[in-house]
Amino acid sequence: IRKHFPEVIYGPGKTEEELIKITETFLAKKLSLLITRVESQKAQAVLKKFPELSYSSRARLIYHLPEKREPKGYILIACGGTADLPVVEEARICAEAFGNRVEVIVDVGVAGVHRIVPELPKLRQARVIICVAGMEGALPSLVAGLIDVPIIAVPVSAGYGANFQGLAPLLTMLNSCAAGVAVVNIDNGFGAAYMASLINQLPERVFSRA
Amino acid sequence: IRKHFPEVIYGPGKTEEELIKITETFLAKKLSLLITRVESQKAQAVLKKFPELSYSSRARLIYHLPEKREPKGYILIACGGTADLPVVEEARICAEAFGNRVEVIVDVGVAGVHRIVPELPKLRQARVIICVAGMEGALPSLVAGLIDVPIIAVPVSAGYGANFQGLAPLLTMLNSCAAGVAVVNIDNGFGAAYMASLINQLPERVFSRA
Amino acid sequence: IRKHFPEVIYGPGKTEEELIKITETFLAKKLSLLITRVESQKAQAVLKKFPELSYSSRARLIYHLPEKREPKGYILIACGGTADLPVVEEARICAEAFGNRVEVIVDVGVAGVHRIVPELPKLRQARVIICVAGMEGALPSLVAGLIDVPIIAVPVSAGYGANFQGLAPLLTMLNSCAAGVAVVNIDNGFGAAYMASLINQLPERVFSRA
Amino acid sequence: IRKHFPEVIYGPGKTEEELIKITETFLAKKLSLLITRVESQKAQAVLKKFPELSYSSRARLIYHLPEKREPKGYILIACGGTADLPVVEEARICAEAFGNRVEVIVDVGVAGVHRIVPELPKLRQARVIICVAGMEGALPSLVAGLIDVPIIAVPVSAGYGANFQGLAPLLTMLNSCAAGVAVVNIDNGFGAAYMASLINQLPERVFSRA
Amino acid sequence: IRKHFPEVIYGPGKTEEELIKITETFLAKKLSLLITRVESQKAQAVLKKFPELSYSSRARLIYHLPEKREPKGYILIACGGTADLPVVEEARICAEAFGNRVEVIVDVGVAGVHRIVPELPKLRQARVIICVAGMEGALPSLVAGLIDVPIIAVPVSAGYGANFQGLAPLLTMLNSCAAGVAVVNIDNGFGAAYMASLINQLPERVFSRA
Amino acid sequence: IRKHFPEVIYGPGKTEEELIKITETFLAKKLSLLITRVESQKAQAVLKKFPELSYSSRARLIYHLPEKREPKGYILIACGGTADLPVVEEARICAEAFGNRVEVIVDVGVAGVHRIVPELPKLRQARVIICVAGMEGALPSLVAGLIDVPIIAVPVSAGYGANFQGLAPLLTMLNSCAAGVAVVNIDNGFGAAYMASLINQLPERVFSRA
Amino acid sequence: IRKHFPEVIYGPGKTEEELIKITETFLAKKLSLLITRVESQKAQAVLKKFPELSYSSRARLIYHLPEKREPKGYILIACGGTADLPVVEEARICAEAFGNRVEVIVDVGVAGVHRIVPELPKLRQARVIICVAGMEGALPSLVAGLIDVPIIAVPVSAGYGANFQGLAPLLTMLNSCAAGVAVVNIDNGFGAAYMASLINQLPERVFSRA
Amino acid sequence: IRKHFPEVIYGPGKTEEELIKITETFLAKKLSLLITRVESQKAQAVLKKFPELSYSSRARLIYHLPEKREPKGYILIACGGTADLPVVEEARICAEAFGNRVEVIVDVGVAGVHRIVPELPKLRQARVIICVAGMEGALPSLVAGLIDVPIIAVPVSAGYGANFQGLAPLLTMLNSCAAGVAVVNIDNGFGAAYMASLINQLPERVFSRA
Ligand SMILES: Nc1ncnc2c1ncn2[C@@H]1O[C@H](COP(=O)(O)O)[C@@H](O)[C@H]1O
Ligand SMILES: Nc1ncnc2c1ncn2[C@@H]1O[C@H](COP(=O)(O)O)[C@@H](O)[C@H]1O
Ligand SMILES: Nc1ncnc2c1ncn2[C@@H]1O[C@H](COP(=O)(O)O)[C@@H](O)[C@H]1O
Ligand SMILES: Nc1ncnc2c1ncn2[C@@H]1O[C@H](COP(=O)(O)O)[C@@H](O)[C@H]1O
Ligand SMILES: [Mg+2]
Ligand SMILES: [Mg+2]
Ligand SMILES: [Mg+2]
Ligand SMILES: [Mg+2]
Ligand SMILES: [Mg+2]
Ligand SMILES: [Mg+2]
Ligand SMILES: [Mg+2]
Ligand SMILES: [Mg+2]
Repeated sequence: IRKHFPEVIYGPGKTEEELIKITETFLAKKLSLLITRVESQKAQAVLKKFPELSYSSRARLIYHLPEKREPKGYILIACGGTADLPVVEEARICAEAFGNRVEVIVDVGVAGVHRIVPELPKLRQARVIICVAGMEGALPSLVAGLIDVPIIAVPVSAGYGANFQGLAPLLTMLNSCAAGVAVVNIDNGFGAAYMASLINQLPERVFSRA
Repeated sequence: IRKHFPEVIYGPGKTEEELIKITETFLAKKLSLLITRVESQKAQAVLKKFPELSYSSRARLIYHLPEKREPKGYILIACGGTADLPVVEEARICAEAFGNRVEVIVDVGVAGVHRIVPELPKLRQARVIICVAGMEGALPSLVAGLIDVPIIAVPVSAGYGANFQGLAPLLTMLNSCAAGVAVVNIDNGFGAAYMASLINQLPERVFSRA
Repeated sequence: IRKHFPEVIYGPGKTEEELIKITETFLAKKLSLLITRVESQKAQAVLKKFPELSYSSRARLIYHLPEKREPKGYILIACGGTADLPVVEEARICAEAFGNRVEVIVDVGVAGVHRIVPELPKLRQARVIICVAGMEGALPSLVAGLIDVPIIAVPVSAGYGANFQGLAPLLTMLNSCAAGVAVVNIDNGFGAAYMASLINQLPERVFSRA
Repeated sequence: IRKHFPEVIYGPGKTEEELIKITETFLAKKLSLLITRVESQKAQAVLKKFPELSYSSRARLIYHLPEKREPKGYILIACGGTADLPVVEEARICAEAFGNRVEVIVDVGVAGVHRIVPELPKLRQARVIICVAGMEGALPSLVAGLIDVPIIAVPVSAGYGANFQGLAPLLTMLNSCAAGVAVVNIDNGFGAAYMASLINQLPERVFSRA
Repeated sequence: IRKHFPEVIYGPGKTEEELIKITETFLAKKLSLLITRVESQKAQAVLKKFPELSYSSRARLIYHLPEKREPKGYILIACGGTADLPVVEEARICAEAFGNRVEVIVDVGVAGVHRIVPELPKLRQARVIICVAGMEGALPSLVAGLIDVPIIAVPVSAGYGANFQGLAPLLTMLNSCAAGVAVVNIDNGFGAAYMASLINQLPERVFSRA
Repeated sequence: IRKHFPEVIYGPGKTEEELIKITETFLAKKLSLLITRVESQKAQAVLKKFPELSYSSRARLIYHLPEKREPKGYILIACGGTADLPVVEEARICAEAFGNRVEVIVDVGVAGVHRIVPELPKLRQARVIICVAGMEGALPSLVAGLIDVPIIAVPVSAGYGANFQGLAPLLTMLNSCAAGVAVVNIDNGFGAAYMASLINQLPERVFSRA
Repeated sequence: IRKHFPEVIYGPGKTEEELIKITETFLAKKLSLLITRVESQKAQAVLKKFPELSYSSRARLIYHLPEKREPKGYILIACGGTADLPVVEEARICAEAFGNRVEVIVDVGVAGVHRIVPELPKLRQARVIICVAGMEGALPSLVAGLIDVPIIAVPVSAGYGANFQGLAPLLTMLNSCAAGVAVVNIDNGFGAAYMASLINQLPERVFSRA
Repeated sequence: IRKHFPEVIYGPGKTEEELIKITETFLAKKLSLLITRVESQKAQAVLKKFPELSYSSRARLIYHLPEKREPKGYILIACGGTADLPVVEEARICAEAFGNRVEVIVDVGVAGVHRIVPELPKLRQARVIICVAGMEGALPSLVAGLIDVPIIAVPVSAGYGANFQGLAPLLTMLNSCAAGVAVVNIDNGFGAAYMASLINQLPERVFSRA
């Protein structure tokens, strides 16, 4: 059966008591722990009980980082600006929790193409790239057109009007005319991190399976 | 009342007889003539009667070009490839019919950013740019991020799946994070040309109205 | 690279601290400043620190107007009523910040055609018109049918039921049977102002580029 | 039970044999007959058997007009152009079949407001108006803003791109900021005629029911 | 120009001060007054200043009823239950304000067909019927199948899940297989009342125009 | 594992050769056979090879009926008219193939409530009812309001305009205010028959499992 | 007329007073009572008056359980996790109120297929299964592929992004490639319970009707 | 710049002449060639000129396979049945053209979970899996729940009714409750192959870049 990471808990709909009970179980088994989408108030209640946990208010994420492994490659997360940061943070912490080295580039976008040029070496060295983008969501197309690294695209729901809560960047990413892009759900930083982690850790796993 | 151009005829729903009658009226008044979206077969019937007309099968457009005026600036039409050509052609012929100089750049796109660099002077010299794009439709964002020329964006219905007949590039263009972009209907090369023509001919008109 | 205006800041998702830091940078460089979509409370915090800034609560806009240039033409903003005012205000202040003369006509609409007749000279003298409209959003069609000035149409999200948060006027504007209309995102007063400003300042720029 | 008119037959899905059998039944009972949406080929087969029937290829309607009654008021049908004619025809023939006097105005629209002025007396004298409109579908708003006659609005599916087969004019009509407008299904000329007929014949019916 | 009723004010987006100023103007001219969609708190502020006004919290409507005229026919409003009452109330008060006699039937619906039988005479005597319905919105089809009175259908946004804020009953009503139904916007009790009022007062107006 | 019926073959996408090969396999094993959605031409090719098969052109169904069992209850299929017949036929033949007794009522609908009264006993005696309905799709609500038998509702894609290929009746059925209704996919006569068959044969199966 | 259960009250839109009055009527007639979707605060007010009632805050349901009958079969409710519990609770209490034995399995899902194996006997013994599922909603397909029991599928609105408030699992369930599934509205635990109850009690009813 | 593979040609919109010219250029440079979505007739014309090319009528793909490299891992493509084969074929040929070893499993699906068990070793040995699925599209969720290999999910447009041309499986895949899934456009076998190829060839590339 699967064993890439102990289960990641989806916070919404769970009561404080339920979250505390789950946390207890995980800590008792000395497992790493990730609880996503936890509102600040609920998170404080949980952290008060378990001070060894951390909480990112931007990512709304409770986490407990595992021993650092020595990853060989790195996952690069790129985004266009402030509005994308909650998703970037969720992806970054999750990816690190899964045992990966992570690099982040903020503020590259289709409307400022010159800003991406100095970042090209860093993009090219990555084993897999997570592109987080709201508004029209064209960043993955731009990056995929420049380099041949597998790209996980994450649409962001920030925006207004004809953005339709992230539908616009979602469609953009699915229709990318540059190959090498695959898409996860709107705002799904966790899902992007999980997929990227599976890819980043492939070489190791190949040998252990051979 | 408006007088930028004699009325442009919308072909669909008109019978051959109706098209012939309209053409007669226009030619009798020595007016320029544009009939959009005319299927090949109908067009042949009309041209057989009026050999002085021209027909573009790619643009599905019957036209009769006016005396060339001496336009000062030019409209630039940029697109990403073959699938956009029917719309580009409709826009180009219409814009010329409205008395403008037109330049065309084919095959620039978000997935091949390097191809746009040598075109930057030509883009920057234009008084107004028409960006025609299907798939994810990110070309207008790219161009608007590079230069400060008003851009008319035209989504193209070519594509498949989550393109939803041009909905994807339409949303992309409306959500452009680069300012200086306004959008017309999917496949509406005529409308883009009309708008661009009004803009391109502004300086002249200012004085004639003062 | 582009230089029509120093970057316009998109407020949502930024913390008070981030807004204050951005403002500091801009003021230090003696640049003009525009921050859109700032909620009243956050705005007060910023203005308390920088009393030289202004804030429009209707437009939710923090702004710092530049030296007035002497614009030759003017941008006209037309709308139908109270519900459109937040967008009109955003467009007006932005357009002025970009160095344009702006005129505003409130309360013209498709359902009161007689009210538009006395405004025709003012509409016709404009170099570019911004039409802001909610409900069914037919104002741009009406105006475009009467005069030959380029029109930037802005759908407004106010409305209810089958308005679908501005989708109805957006579709109306994209389908306008009157030529000379191009559309920006729902509620995007800033984007309309930017596009209109590029158009309004074209003649000047033509010569400086020749 | 209802008796405004013998049942109107909906053509699609019925075989030639079924249409012929229905026709026989109606003619045998000396009833008026209306069959909507009949493709040309099927219609020819039916008319060959019953030469007393008529067929409108534009409206795709088989009909057999009843004795003319002497209607007191009239229904006015207004539309914007060629593309609306199939729906106008369906509405006109149906309304006449239901015993009404019908007037038709072609080629009035929101983009040509001056063309509606000379028609105002005719519009105002009508007891009920059917507005047929495609593209952005703003005609009913325009008319309702000018006069106080009940208006049945019919969206037309002709158009392209963001018209979405009549969705755009449908939403426009439902969001009309002018009161006095109610809407029927896209392309439903028959339904509009039925509703208008009920309204037009109200005075008579009031007395017969008293 | 139109004169069926002094303008109806649309409340949302207007400040307390603006509402008070409008009220002052109307009362000064001794006009009837209707302000729709006013939240309770705002309404209290207005009524405190003008105690002669009334407010319906269910309909969120400020109103000032005119002298009662002597209407000949009546408008019947039918609905299925509690969830429809806010719209029914808006329609009822508006229709009365427009000078009509109004009857209301609550709790008839497609899922309780037997409850409609005793109401048939009352339905048949009406000159026009307003059917207000949420959920699947089949009431207008049911009524239109039973009697030959013009029906204005109003979809209600109450419901959940695949109701999509009233989209489900809206589509139902537009697709009614029973003729004699026309539709207004979701929750638009005011619009239904206006349309019904125009129809109900037709006979009188015919003579005054002759 | 499941054994209610040998697999039902879904025709679209299969070549003539593939259909013939599948048929061979089934007949060799002396199994009953159902192939849904087979176009007439393909079906003829298959029947030419296997004359023992039957084909319904209305239902586009190839079938080979099993030995008749002696079912205790019956499934009733009700619909509104001609346009629903292809789906009714698919459901009827499938249900019989699954070993059920089936009764059919054509031409009952929400717009002709009186026609349903004489059918009530037959409806009430059924163990399960399949309601097939297009247009606004209100038939299941009507029936469910009258009797307490489980109802499988099947939306039909026939219709036009705001029917959106069956979306309208689908939403209607999901929002039914009468309890006792569950819905299958648009046009899915087969799926409805399968579900109804499971229900109809429950009593027998209870004992065989005990 | 129908008599499966005294009417179930839909809470939203009813005032406290209205709820209390309804409760009084039901209790006076010694009827069972179910009021769905009641917010906690309103519920407390009602329970304070009638301490014999119960309230489930997860299901937002006020209920008053009838005398227990001796049901022969049972309804099984299966779901994937915490987020589904409000709907599961609504379904469970309703089904019990309708006189059924109910079993519940929490935490089976398409992404943990091994967890369903030990539950197969319990699933197979049920007379009818209610599958409650959010996210992608594939649970009903999984179960229907394993066993031949009629399945009522309930999509859950919990989720985010491209879940679109339950649209994603709704479409999944309607498109199930496994037969034997019918669907009720998003979050409609009550409706699923009613349908399941009709099915579960069929054998008894067959005889009482014979 | 990118060099994973010579450009893949998108066939639609290109004339026979254009396709022939492109082919000539590629063959002249001794490059591999892939042209997607080519209709049979056009393809025959091209192959007649270049008999060294191959054409798959199921995948509508013209291809010219490169020298076989010796790939270390393999890409596994899994699908549910006949309707998915065109997409599977497009993915398979493309992936091989990109130099990968490919394995295919047909006929595994959520509705036949037992069929997937014997395939688990083959699935687990793959370096990356492409899951192709129509109808409700739950296959990727099922596989991702069983093993920890990165999965590229491809929705298929085959289906009917509420499938909405592949929208249903697209949403399912985006909402997968099993992590390790990323999605490409509906029917985009080519895009899935490109992404999978980048992943499959990662280990090699890591060293060549170090
Ligand atoms: N391809 C087109 N797209 C949108 N509008 C068009 C097109 N071609 C012509 N028109 C407009 O359609 C109107 C003419 O319609 P008609 O009178 O039916 O020929 C004119 O106002 C044109 O501006
Ligand atoms: N074009 C149409 N659009 C909508 N309903 C129609 C149309 N033509 C006929 N009908 C209605 O369809 C019903 C007849 O359907 P049928 O029994 O199938 O012929 C009648 O109730 C008519 O009122
Ligand atoms: N609830 C309502 N729904 C739709 N239109 C309304 C409503 N209330 C008022 N109106 C219309 O809105 C216009 C007044 O808008 P305003 O000038 O913003 O007050 C008038 O034309 C009214 O007919
Ligand atoms: N008309 C239909 N609609 C939905 N599913 C169907 C239909 N006909 C057959 N099926 C299902 O499709 C599956 C067979 O697909 P296939 O293996 O491609 O023939 C079986 O599970 C059937 O239950
Ligand atoms: Mg790439
Ligand atoms: Mg720019
Ligand atoms: Mg104009
Ligand atoms: Mg009016
Ligand atoms: Mg009627
Ligand atoms: Mg019932
Ligand atoms: Mg089953
Ligand atoms: Mg996995």
